[in-house]
Amino acid sequence: MPSTMQAVVKAQAAAGIEMREVPVPTPGPGEVLVRVQAVSVCGTDLHIFNWDPWAQWRVHPPLIPGHEFSGVVAGVGHGVTTVKEGDPVSAEMHVVCGKCIQCRTGQAHICQEVRILGIDADGAFASYAIIPESNIWKLPPSTPYEHGTLLDPLGNVVHSVLAGPIAAQTVVVTGCGAIGLLSIAVAKACGATKVFGIELNARRRGVAATMGADLALDPATDDVEEQIMEATGGTGVDVLLEMSGHPAATRMGFGLLKKGGRASLLGIPSEPYELDIARDIIFKGAVVHGINGRKMYETWFQMEALLATGKVNLEPVITHRLKLSEFPKAMEVLRTGEAIKVVMRPE
Amino acid sequence: MPSTMQAVVKAQAAAGIEMREVPVPTPGPGEVLVRVQAVSVCGTDLHIFNWDPWAQWRVHPPLIPGHEFSGVVAGVGHGVTTVKEGDPVSAEMHVVCGKCIQCRTGQAHICQEVRILGIDADGAFASYAIIPESNIWKLPPSTPYEHGTLLDPLGNVVHSVLAGPIAAQTVVVTGCGAIGLLSIAVAKACGATKVFGIELNARRRGVAATMGADLALDPATDDVEEQIMEATGGTGVDVLLEMSGHPAATRMGFGLLKKGGRASLLGIPSEPYELDIARDIIFKGAVVHGINGRKMYETWFQMEALLATGKVNLEPVITHRLKLSEFPKAMEVLRTGEAIKVVMRPE
Amino acid sequence: MPSTMQAVVKAQAAAGIEMREVPVPTPGPGEVLVRVQAVSVCGTDLHIFNWDPWAQWRVHPPLIPGHEFSGVVAGVGHGVTTVKEGDPVSAEMHVVCGKCIQCRTGQAHICQEVRILGIDADGAFASYAIIPESNIWKLPPSTPYEHGTLLDPLGNVVHSVLAGPIAAQTVVVTGCGAIGLLSIAVAKACGATKVFGIELNARRRGVAATMGADLALDPATDDVEEQIMEATGGTGVDVLLEMSGHPAATRMGFGLLKKGGRASLLGIPSEPYELDIARDIIFKGAVVHGINGRKMYETWFQMEALLATGKVNLEPVITHRLKLSEFPKAMEVLRTGEAIKVVMRPE
Amino acid sequence: MPSTMQAVVKAQAAAGIEMREVPVPTPGPGEVLVRVQAVSVCGTDLHIFNWDPWAQWRVHPPLIPGHEFSGVVAGVGHGVTTVKEGDPVSAEMHVVCGKCIQCRTGQAHICQEVRILGIDADGAFASYAIIPESNIWKLPPSTPYEHGTLLDPLGNVVHSVLAGPIAAQTVVVTGCGAIGLLSIAVAKACGATKVFGIELNARRRGVAATMGADLALDPATDDVEEQIMEATGGTGVDVLLEMSGHPAATRMGFGLLKKGGRASLLGIPSEPYELDIARDIIFKGAVVHGINGRKMYETWFQMEALLATGKVNLEPVITHRLKLSEFPKAMEVLRTGEAIKVVMRPE
Repeated sequence: MPSTMQAVVKAQAAAGIEMREVPVPTPGPGEVLVRVQAVSVCGTDLHIFNWDPWAQWRVHPPLIPGHEFSGVVAGVGHGVTTVKEGDPVSAEMHVVCGKCIQCRTGQAHICQEVRILGIDADGAFASYAIIPESNIWKLPPSTPYEHGTLLDPLGNVVHSVLAGPIAAQTVVVTGCGAIGLLSIAVAKACGATKVFGIELNARRRGVAATMGADLALDPATDDVEEQIMEATGGTGVDVLLEMSGHPAATRMGFGLLKKGGRASLLGIPSEPYELDIARDIIFKGAVVHGINGRKMYETWFQMEALLATGKVNLEPVITHRLKLSEFPKAMEVLRTGEAIKVVMRPE
Repeated sequence: MPSTMQAVVKAQAAAGIEMREVPVPTPGPGEVLVRVQAVSVCGTDLHIFNWDPWAQWRVHPPLIPGHEFSGVVAGVGHGVTTVKEGDPVSAEMHVVCGKCIQCRTGQAHICQEVRILGIDADGAFASYAIIPESNIWKLPPSTPYEHGTLLDPLGNVVHSVLAGPIAAQTVVVTGCGAIGLLSIAVAKACGATKVFGIELNARRRGVAATMGADLALDPATDDVEEQIMEATGGTGVDVLLEMSGHPAATRMGFGLLKKGGRASLLGIPSEPYELDIARDIIFKGAVVHGINGRKMYETWFQMEALLATGKVNLEPVITHRLKLSEFPKAMEVLRTGEAIKVVMRPE
Repeated sequence: MPSTMQAVVKAQAAAGIEMREVPVPTPGPGEVLVRVQAVSVCGTDLHIFNWDPWAQWRVHPPLIPGHEFSGVVAGVGHGVTTVKEGDPVSAEMHVVCGKCIQCRTGQAHICQEVRILGIDADGAFASYAIIPESNIWKLPPSTPYEHGTLLDPLGNVVHSVLAGPIAAQTVVVTGCGAIGLLSIAVAKACGATKVFGIELNARRRGVAATMGADLALDPATDDVEEQIMEATGGTGVDVLLEMSGHPAATRMGFGLLKKGGRASLLGIPSEPYELDIARDIIFKGAVVHGINGRKMYETWFQMEALLATGKVNLEPVITHRLKLSEFPKAMEVLRTGEAIKVVMRPE
Repeated sequence: MPSTMQAVVKAQAAAGIEMREVPVPTPGPGEVLVRVQAVSVCGTDLHIFNWDPWAQWRVHPPLIPGHEFSGVVAGVGHGVTTVKEGDPVSAEMHVVCGKCIQCRTGQAHICQEVRILGIDADGAFASYAIIPESNIWKLPPSTPYEHGTLLDPLGNVVHSVLAGPIAAQTVVVTGCGAIGLLSIAVAKACGATKVFGIELNARRRGVAATMGADLALDPATDDVEEQIMEATGGTGVDVLLEMSGHPAATRMGFGLLKKGGRASLLGIPSEPYELDIARDIIFKGAVVHGINGRKMYETWFQMEALLATGKVNLEPVITHRLKLSEFPKAMEVLRTGEAIKVVMRPE
C-alpha cells in the first residue's frame, strides 16, 4: 500500500481543478478502502469544474469529486464483515442518516440529511476512496470495471423506468445523453413495445438507435408530434421519461403523453419554468413521479438482475477512455458534446 | 306529465342567461327522464354565465346548463331495465364513447370523446332532464335531494383523496371552496391524522373548522409554513390536495409537502404558470396526480359507502337555497364569495 | 354465404361429441358473424368431451364448444360500427352483464353474471360463430390466424405475469403445458432475469427451453429445490406462476418462493387441498393473486403490444394442425400428452 | 439503580414458569436499558408457558419472555443518540440482520435472520429490559403505559388493515380476540363502511360492538352468510381480515369475500389445512396477503398517527390488570377465555 496517491482536487472556490498527490486515506470502523479501477464523469462534475452557482452553493473546497466508480477492496476498517480485500465493488454514494422518517420508511434515497460522496465529502477521482460498508455494492466477477462505473447513473435510470408499469408500454425519452440512452435500453429490456428518443445531437440519436430506439427524432427538424402520434395510433405514449431537464423538451414530452399516462422526471431543470398544468397533468389525468437517486437498495438488486439478463448493453454509451491525469480533456469533450460517457483510469 | 317546463337557457353567445318555458323532452331508447328536485351551481356555470374565453370556446348556445342535480325518475325509454318511475336518482354527467382506449381500460373518466351534459348538451337547470341509463346513479332513500346534488363535486373529491394513501396521513388542502371543504371531511373520514386548510376567505375558514380541519390558516396573515411544519414535526405534510387552481397556492402547497409525499391536483389553473419542478417534484421525490372527473363508477360506489358511514356531513357547505327562477341571484352570491354552495329547486 | 355449416356439437349429456351440419347463424343487433379460420383446443374442451363432473354441472347440451379462435368478419348486425366484413378478428369469449359491481368498477373479467361462449352458449368449433361487437378484437394484418387462436390463453398468461412486478425478477413456472410455456416467454419478454420451468413431461421441458427457460426441471428426478435455491443465491424466486392446478406442484412452488414474494395462481385445482398457509403465505409475507380470465380489455392491449415487440414467439406451442373434422383425434393427442396445442381449421 | 430485579423466567424445557430475582442487565454499545412500566401477555407467551411443540422447537431456556411492553429509559450504552434517560418508550422486538435481501429492500419485517426479543432472547417480563437503540419507539407523553404495551399487536393490526384499500370498504373480521377487536377499531378509523365481527365467545362479541362492529355474529348460532350477504347487497365483503388462524373461520371468511376482494391473513393456523383454492381464490380473483410483524418502521409511524386522531380506543380490550408476580393467574384467565388482554406491572 503506497502512502500517497494521485487525486483530482477542487482546491479553490473557483473554476478549474488540480491534479495533486495526497495521502491515501485509512478506513475507520465500518469503512472500506477501495482501490479505484475506473471512474466516469457525470454532468455534476462539470458543474463543479465550472464552479457554477449551484456548485458555489453546495461544494466546500478542498474536495475530491467523483461518484461513479468501481474498484477492488484494498482494506477494511474495524467491524466490516460483508466484504474483504480483493472483492470487486462499486458503491451507492448517498450516505444517509438512517434516522429521519424517510430513512425509517424505505425511502432513504430521499434522506433529509443525505451526504453525497464526491460532492459533500471526498469521492473517487483518485487512486483510492473510502466508502461506508453499508454503501458498498459487490460486483459479479463478470462485470468489467468500466461498466461498474455506470451503476450510479444506470440506477437512476432503472429507478425511473420501474417507477410505474413499463411492459407492453410505449415510451418517449426526452434527452438522449448517457441517462436517456440507458433509459432506452432498460425500457426495451423490460418489455416496452416502442421507445422513441428525442435529441438534438445527431451522434446521440445514432446511439439511441443502437440502444434500441424505434425512432430517434430531431426536435429541430422532425415533426415529432406527427410521427409519434402516428406510431401510437393517435393516442400518444403511455410513458414519458424526462431525462433532459429542458423546459421545451419537457413540455414536448407532456404533449406526447397519453391521457392517463405516466411521466417520470429525472432531468434537473436549472430554474423554475412555466408548465400548462391544466392541459398536461390535470385534464390528462397524468401520474407524475419526481425521481431522485436510486432506491436503497432495491434498485441495485434490480440493476444487477437486469444486467444478468444480458439485455442491457452499456458499451455504446462509453465514447472516451482516458487516464485520470487527462481530467481537463474529459471536461473538454463533455463540454463540446463530443463525448457521451468518459471513463478514466487512475494510474 | 306537463308538456312544457321551466328552464335556465344560455340562449345567446353573450354574457347572461334567460328563464324560458321549453318543451319537456322525451326519453329515447336507453334514456331516462328525471324530474329535477334540486340542482346546485358549480364554478363552471359561472364561467358559462359570464361567457368567458373558456365558455366561448367550449359552449354552443342554445344550451340548458347544470350538471349537479338529483331528482325522481319520471319516465324511461325503450330497453331501460335498471331504474323505474319513482326512483330517486342523481347522475354522472360525463357521457363517454365506450370505444376509445381509455374507456376500454377502466379510465372512462378521461374518455377521448367525452360529452358533458350541462356543457356540451342540455343539463339539469330545468324541471326535467334526460340522462342515459348507464349514467344514472340510484340514491338511497335516506339521501336528501339537496345532498344528492353534491355527488358530482363530492365524487371529484373522493377521486382526489383516494388517489393515494390517506389513512394515518397529514394533509394540506389548498383552497377551501366547496370542493376543498368536502376534501377536509372526506380525508378525515378516511383516517387522515391532521388536515390543514388554507384559504383567504374568513367565512370559508370557519366552515373548514366545522368540516374537521385541525388548522384553517389565512395565507395573507398567518405564518403558514411555520405552523404546518411545527404541526408535522418538521417533515411537512404527507399529502397535498390542491383545490384552488391558483399558482401561488399550489406553490405554497408543494413547499409544505414532505419528501416522498403525494400531491393530487384537482383545481384548474386558468393558464400555464411557473413551478419549481426541480425543488418541488424531482428532489422531493413527489408523486403528483392530475385528477379529472370521477372514476366510472368506482368513485360512485366509494361515495355511497362513505356517506353511509355518516362521517361525511355535506350540510355545512350548502349556504344558500333558492328557487330555480332566482338563478341571477345565485350568480351574484357566488360572484361575491358570500355563498359556498347554492342549491336551487325548480318549481 | 352458405345456409349450413360444419360444427362440432355436444349433443347429449354424455361423453363424446358429434360432427353435424347445422344452420349458419344470423347476427342480431350489435352482433358480428365471423367465418372461423382457425380454432384451438383448450383443456376445458377435453372436460366437456369427457363429460366429467364439472361439465355435467356447467354445460347444457346441445352446445357448440370452442372458445379459442380467429377468423374473418362475414357479416354484421344492426348498429355495429367498429368492424366490417373482411376484418381479421379474434374475440374475448366472456360475455358480461355490464351492470354488476365488478363490471362497473373495471373488473368485468369476474362479472357475477358472465356467460362464456363455447361453454354457456355456442362457440367456435364450427365454420361460423356469432360474437357481440364489444367482444371482438381486431387482429393486426400480420397476425397468422393460428396465432390469433392463442390470444385467449395468452391473455390468461399476460394477466398472470403482469399481476405484479416482473422486470428484474426471478420466476418459477409450475406446469409447462401451453399456458406455462407461454408464461415463460412472456415473463422473459417483460424483463424477468431467470425463469425456471417445472414439468414432468420431457417434451414439454424441451419446449420450455425453447421458450426461454433458464432451467427446465423434472420434479420426479431433479433436486428442484437445490437447483433453484442455488440459482437464486439461496433466497428463492421472486415470483411463482402456478399453471398446473396440481396440489403437489403448487406446494413445491410456494416452497421455492422468496420471503415477500408474489404468487399468481391460474391453474385450476380439481378439488380443495391442503396447504401450509402459515409457512407458505403468512410467515413468508407472500402476496397471492387468483387469476381468472383476462382484464377487459387492458390485457388485450398489453398482449397486442407484447406481440408487436416480436419477443413472444407463439409458434413452439403449436404441435398439431388438424382439420375440424378430425376433432376426435385432437382429443386423443391431448389426452395422451403427445400434443401441447392443437389448432384446427374448419373446411 | 438496583443490582437485581424481578423476572418471569422460563427456566426449564418443561411447562410452567418461575419468578426469579436476576441481575439487572447493563446496556452495551448501541443498546438501551428500559425500566418496564407495563407489559402485556400475547398468545405466544401462553405457548411458551404450556411448552407446546412450537415452543419446544423454537425456545431455548433459560429465557425471560415478554414482547409487548412500555417503560422509561433508565440508561443508554455507548453511541446512543436518539433517546435519553427518562424518555417514555415502547419497542419493536424484531431484531433484524440488516444485511439480507429483505432487510435491504424495505422488508425487514420478514428478515431471514430475525431474532425476536422475548422468544429468541430475553424480553420484557421483568423490571428492566435491554433493547437495541434502532428498535426503540418513543411514546408521546400522552400515551398511558398500558396502552404503550399494545403497540406490538396494534402494529400487526395496522399492517393488516392497511395492506390494501380500506376506506369505503366493507370488512369481515374472523376471530375477535385482542387482535381482531383492534382490527375492527382500526378499520373503522380508516373509513371502512361496515365492519362485521365473527366470534364464538359472547363476551368478545360484546366488545366487538364497543369497538365499532356493525354486526358481531356467532358462527354457531347466527346465519352468518345470510346476514352479511344481506348487509352487503348480495356481493359479499370487500375485505377479509383473518385473525383467528382457524381453518373453519378462514373458509367462512373466504366464502363471504366479494369477487375481486382482498384477504389479509394474520392469524396463524397450527397446521396445514384444506382450502378450496379454485373457488375461494382463483375464480374469485382474490388478492391474499400473508401478514407478518409490522413494517419497520412505516407501520409504527402509521400507528402513532392513528392513535393521535383519537379514533382508535385501546381501552376496551384490556380486561385484566395484574402484578407481574401474578403471572400464573394471567395464564389462567387467558386459558379460560375470561380475559382478552392482560396487562401486568412489575413491582
